[in-house]
Amino acid sequence: MTEIARLIAANEGYAAARANVADARPGRRLAVVTCMDARIDVFAVLGLHLGEAHVIRNAGGRVTDDVLRSLAISSHLLGVDTVAVMQHTKCGLAGVSDEELREVTGADLGFYPIAHHATALREDIDVLTRTPYLAPIRVVAGFVYDVESGEIDDVVRWERPT
Amino acid sequence: MTEIARLIAANEGYAAARANVADARPGRRLAVVTCMDARIDVFAVLGLHLGEAHVIRNAGGRVTDDVLRSLAISSHLLGVDTVAVMQHTKCGLAGVSDEELREVTGADLGFYPIAHHATALREDIDVLTRTPYLAPIRVVAGFVYDVESGEIDDVVRWERPT
Repeated sequence: MTEIARLIAANEGYAAARANVADARPGRRLAVVTCMDARIDVFAVLGLHLGEAHVIRNAGGRVTDDVLRSLAISSHLLGVDTVAVMQHTKCGLAGVSDEELREVTGADLGFYPIAHHATALREDIDVLTRTPYLAPIRVVAGFVYDVESGEIDDVVRWERPT
Repeated sequence: MTEIARLIAANEGYAAARANVADARPGRRLAVVTCMDARIDVFAVLGLHLGEAHVIRNAGGRVTDDVLRSLAISSHLLGVDTVAVMQHTKCGLAGVSDEELREVTGADLGFYPIAHHATALREDIDVLTRTPYLAPIRVVAGFVYDVESGEIDDVVRWERPT
């Protein structure tokens, strides 16, 4: 069973556990990129246990430069070869524009708003998989998490050609 | 009891729970910024429950531009006024240099390495508290989490002058 399949299977059980772990290398060679949203308990949603996966989170669960920096560390120093990018329903970045967000926040930034999850996931996974220094990453999946039902929808899969 | 005190008190119990939450606004008006490290279950470490806090994670738990972007959304759109920045012992970014990380990863990036946690936390909290568009944030704390004992050390506190 692949790491991605394990994520999906575990999500059906939706259970978490904990233990002391000495090794900094994620036991499942996995990193999860997801949104900061308060309604997402990543370990519980994906059935992850302590020590199994890096968890990278920001507004939207978007693949920003900072996520690429983090994944460079994950993949080259700590053995990660599989990444799950998980956006979610009812996200604050969905259906808004950069202009609206600049107006509300007073910050002159690019906010990575999301018009359509499937499109945003494909764009983000393109950025990730085309980043030359992330060559150790072999498998990427794009999910949408439903914050109401607790279920994940499996939207994009990518494997590095051999 | 302040939000920061609640974090510390909850850490002694080290328990997590879950429930369905409809509101996107974090119930405790709190955001936690921490490392992607696989040995950190943020909800469990800080006794957070679903719906209570934004969780922002990257390599090192550093206050990068992407963290500022995320906190702009947290604070202006979703009511967050308190931030905990939590670095941790045995971090892969501690005791290494940008030069070494560029050599290992092949990525010409600034990696935000950590020479001393107390210094890095103070620098990061300075960046956060001096960012003009993050004025809604009133309280910031800097913690170091011990991945072996499970305990947090309370290193920096800041409150916006009234």
